[in-house]
Amino acid sequence: MTLTIRPAAAGDVPTILRLVHELAEFERAADSVVATEHLLAAALFGDRPAAQAVIAEVDGAAAGLAVFFENFSTWTGRAGLYLEDLYVTPDVRGAGVGSALLRHLAGIAVERGCTRFEWAVLDWNKPAMEFYVSKGAELMSEWRICRVSGDALAAMACA
Amino acid sequence: MTLTIRPAAAGDVPTILRLVHELAEFERAADSVVATEHLLAAALFGDRPAAQAVIAEVDGAAAGLAVFFENFSTWTGRAGLYLEDLYVTPDVRGAGVGSALLRHLAGIAVERGCTRFEWAVLDWNKPAMEFYVSKGAELMSEWRICRVSGDALAAMACA
Repeated sequence: MTLTIRPAAAGDVPTILRLVHELAEFERAADSVVATEHLLAAALFGDRPAAQAVIAEVDGAAAGLAVFFENFSTWTGRAGLYLEDLYVTPDVRGAGVGSALLRHLAGIAVERGCTRFEWAVLDWNKPAMEFYVSKGAELMSEWRICRVSGDALAAMACA
Repeated sequence: MTLTIRPAAAGDVPTILRLVHELAEFERAADSVVATEHLLAAALFGDRPAAQAVIAEVDGAAAGLAVFFENFSTWTGRAGLYLEDLYVTPDVRGAGVGSALLRHLAGIAVERGCTRFEWAVLDWNKPAMEFYVSKGAELMSEWRICRVSGDALAAMACA
């Protein structure tokens, strides 16, 4: 098996959207994906990219995806790397693709001088949590994400 | 009482760092702040800002701070607004400064076409959670943050 990781290119957008859909289905949120190829192309490859993506290929076929952007911490005073999506296709799971993607992204974080590399995991996905902890991640168990969207966001803006 | 919210300027960096320290102390993590005025100035007002800040003033004195940046969701395909820090000084708590800051930031999110406005809250800070939910926020209770930093990040990059 030959594993390579490369930056995504504009031609990968259909593949990226397919993998995003597969991940959302696994995360029991298939209906939550409203992204389109047009939106992803603009966000990843437009004039002012909001995020970047890398593709893992096994024997030349797309087998994994990571989408990431830089966040910021007032405590460190520095940018960090935030991993929005990490996905490995079922047929190659357990073969080291996820580890290789994490290693690749940690390398990008170090190169850029980011002092933190962060992502979110579902609390019922115990295998993922154990995998991440085995790789050196700390579970920030005290923190909860708050989200405002849709009508609630419009209402908050006009309150 | 006169409340105004304005974008932070480079001259506010000492005030911003003081408020960040006060927030960290409240969050029982005073030792976690390693940011310096130099780092914050570069991150907020440098050539390629990593984040932005707004200051709330009550009767002309700094009484609140919000630091935020844009994140990205593959599910929506769009940027969102992420609130890294929200702080109101103890002397004016309960006077609507936090509400005004949230409203201001929700307005920025709507203006920019962000479909989500998100932040993290400590699970023991019940008053904050209740306040946010009362403003329309949803607690994403299934998600846990993973973080790799310091030696663990270097080790991950070289694994």
